[in-house]
Amino acid sequence: MSYDDQNIFAKILRDEIPSTRVYEDADTLCFMDIFPRADGHCLVIPKTPCRNLLDASADQLASVMATTQKVANAAMAALGADGVTVQQFNEAPGGQEVFHLHFHILPRWEGVSLRPPGQPGDMAQIAEIAGKLRKVLD
Amino acid sequence: MSYDDQNIFAKILRDEIPSTRVYEDADTLCFMDIFPRADGHCLVIPKTPCRNLLDASADQLASVMATTQKVANAAMAALGADGVTVQQFNEAPGGQEVFHLHFHILPRWEGVSLRPPGQPGDMAQIAEIAGKLRKVLD
Repeated sequence: MSYDDQNIFAKILRDEIPSTRVYEDADTLCFMDIFPRADGHCLVIPKTPCRNLLDASADQLASVMATTQKVANAAMAALGADGVTVQQFNEAPGGQEVFHLHFHILPRWEGVSLRPPGQPGDMAQIAEIAGKLRKVLD
Repeated sequence: MSYDDQNIFAKILRDEIPSTRVYEDADTLCFMDIFPRADGHCLVIPKTPCRNLLDASADQLASVMATTQKVANAAMAALGADGVTVQQFNEAPGGQEVFHLHFHILPRWEGVSLRPPGQPGDMAQIAEIAGKLRKVLD
């Protein structure tokens, strides 16, 4: 399996298409999912190319997991979440739709189910939640 | 949030209750889920205590992710999976039921949905699949 540098996350990394950024360091980027299955649903990706977990380097995995942990804890603190669900999909039958490694961070609240996939979010609300996350992460 | 060393994965690590082991190294253990949502559904845990992603150390995350990657690739090779879904749950509202950090590895096949949670698997079939995974991992 190969890496296609025209995938939308590669374009987000190159600023060719916009994203609502939450956190960034030398190796990783976290930005909001625009089809949020939960309030605060965001994605963590490595800045360097890899398709998914199956071909990631140890360095890519370590840096992406460190950021995933940081943002998960920020979601608990900034959004008052009661828990966090992490999902990571590999190849289309595994649920992957964009072929650049990404971890989904889904803040969760007692008694609130995940929304169905594929429903566009309210961009103003997404921006407001990203602001709350950034305040804790900055 | 604290760590309770009477959780069932801690008991599995101490061999106080049985498990069907798939892979083991100095820092991590992989064993079969006995409520498999997919054929080959298994779990990767650190050998040292931590509750979940929110309190894990960088070393625990790095070693657990390395094993998760190794077993995911083994599932592709040994079981002919078409993809892999990874899930990781934090706190009860996030889906966590056992409070020792664990990553679910769910091998996936084109057109095959995940089974509902909570359905006990056929232990003979689970053992057979574990044997196939071990053959690739050993």
